[in-house]
Amino acid sequence: MLAGRQSWLFQNRPVILATGVTGGPFEAAGALPNDFDVLHDDIWLGQASFEKAEKKLLEEACEKAIYKAGLKKEDVHFFFSGDLMNQIISSSFTARKLGIPYFGLFGACSSSMEGLSLAAFVVNAGGARYALAAASSHNGAVNKQYRYPTEYGAQLPPTAQWTVTGAGAALLAAEGSGPRVTMATIGRIVDMGLSDPFNMGAAMAPAAVDTIESHFRDFKLDASYYDLIATGDLGKVGHAIAGDLLQKHGLAIPGEKFTDCGLLIYKDDQPVMAGASGCACSAVVTYGHLLNRLRRGELRRILVVATGTLLSPLSYQQKESIPCIAHAVAIEREDG
Amino acid sequence: MLAGRQSWLFQNRPVILATGVTGGPFEAAGALPNDFDVLHDDIWLGQASFEKAEKKLLEEACEKAIYKAGLKKEDVHFFFSGDLMNQIISSSFTARKLGIPYFGLFGACSSSMEGLSLAAFVVNAGGARYALAAASSHNGAVNKQYRYPTEYGAQLPPTAQWTVTGAGAALLAAEGSGPRVTMATIGRIVDMGLSDPFNMGAAMAPAAVDTIESHFRDFKLDASYYDLIATGDLGKVGHAIAGDLLQKHGLAIPGEKFTDCGLLIYKDDQPVMAGASGCACSAVVTYGHLLNRLRRGELRRILVVATGTLLSPLSYQQKESIPCIAHAVAIEREDG
Repeated sequence: MLAGRQSWLFQNRPVILATGVTGGPFEAAGALPNDFDVLHDDIWLGQASFEKAEKKLLEEACEKAIYKAGLKKEDVHFFFSGDLMNQIISSSFTARKLGIPYFGLFGACSSSMEGLSLAAFVVNAGGARYALAAASSHNGAVNKQYRYPTEYGAQLPPTAQWTVTGAGAALLAAEGSGPRVTMATIGRIVDMGLSDPFNMGAAMAPAAVDTIESHFRDFKLDASYYDLIATGDLGKVGHAIAGDLLQKHGLAIPGEKFTDCGLLIYKDDQPVMAGASGCACSAVVTYGHLLNRLRRGELRRILVVATGTLLSPLSYQQKESIPCIAHAVAIEREDG
Repeated sequence: MLAGRQSWLFQNRPVILATGVTGGPFEAAGALPNDFDVLHDDIWLGQASFEKAEKKLLEEACEKAIYKAGLKKEDVHFFFSGDLMNQIISSSFTARKLGIPYFGLFGACSSSMEGLSLAAFVVNAGGARYALAAASSHNGAVNKQYRYPTEYGAQLPPTAQWTVTGAGAALLAAEGSGPRVTMATIGRIVDMGLSDPFNMGAAMAPAAVDTIESHFRDFKLDASYYDLIATGDLGKVGHAIAGDLLQKHGLAIPGEKFTDCGLLIYKDDQPVMAGASGCACSAVVTYGHLLNRLRRGELRRILVVATGTLLSPLSYQQKESIPCIAHAVAIEREDG
């Protein structure tokens, strides 16, 4: 149901029945290894390419979510998935393996919450009993496509971020037991003229703030409603800018309630420059760590604001700045 | 509302209030020039690149649809759009210009009906009063990215198709006057092992048949329900294969009721090999020609089955076959 200008209220509170979370060696050595279902010590996953390794991570996450929900692939009505690869090949090849009717999405690193918003809307409105929402990324595959191949050993500036290798999937249901998806706010493009692919956090921060502001306005809420508001992958640079912007807009979020998935996933001594990024960043932290904290009762209500740079070759070759977007989804404990 | 395995029934019958259809010089010289709102005699549209020309085609189509509906950009709640460019830059840059909360989609040439399905679902369920669904493609931009740059002058085999330069947008509303969107069937990936980028029609035909078969099964219908069933861009080769497959499955559609957007848009003497293709093919033919035929009363009920090859670099470099998909949307006259 439309709420305000650009939000949905899910009055039937779709349930996240189960999630599947997979990661690579850098994530295994990170801060949240216990929040993954599967961790691989080989960045190639035994595959012939990074792209094929990413496909396998996504397949595993989806199969894990379906299995943990006690379902079979045939039970799931629709699959919403996106990733960063050209033609979202990881998602499409996973959809081929699953055989579930499929909506391919491209929201770059906002794809996790773009998919969860749509899946929740469809389940809430009786369009599916079961829907699967997923997103993936792979450090090697992303660097090859968007920046420099990792083998090249290019020096990265401190504002650069480290793309998460992993995948996260959430199985939504009309009925059952688990955390509930209660609201979503869909972002519009915000483009402040930045064009540096090694400083995505700064480019995305205004989009995150715009969506948080819209969310509060559409639902007449403020930060006090949530125990935690987590942006997707702004990293240190973007997170600081987002905090400053929120304060300027009179919407300051107390520091202990405001975090970023890109600051949670790795240890301080890992070489991740400004933090983590990638489609999988918000997906694995939300579907692993944050939902586990909800399930354990440490958190009651969270807002996940997945941010994406809808980056393009034009950004490099034709001096276009980077259009950014953020989608926010509210998740509450079952008794929330 | 879920219908059968993979379909939705839109009991509130969302209205297509208005459409915007734009095209390039090859389309102006084609079979349907009167069904376009804007036709350009310059394939570059005065822009610095084919990609920027495509962006302008999509912007124009969207602005035209909004204007013809008597609305302003601010009235439209959500924008669903996809195209063939890496990172769907045409859609994202158009979303930046429009400022409408945005869902980026990647369904390749099935994007038109992927977007229309989702927009209709959201409007039908009270998630928006107004939603815009669009898709675009550009012959030069697509050839540069997927095959050979057009300047290279590569010889094409007779099974190759000609990518449509254009864009189509449909403005959906909960109330008002115009053709109604009544049903949708969401496709699953069908991959028969083909990997030739110069014979997409053959690869997509089984996906179209799978979705048509699912549509008939989910709604307990047969071809007699429709005045016309139009696939998206199978071209001559794929259309013939689809016809044969339907017959084998006991679902033969009479020839006069079964067509393909890729066979309608150009004149016989244009050098389009097996027919037209591209995201814009089904978008411009449906939102222009077919809706005009509905409005004139020549057709009462149509089913548009947009087909897409979720093509990837893997198809070339790593011997992966091409995953294909098709989404079907039923559109009826207001009094249908």
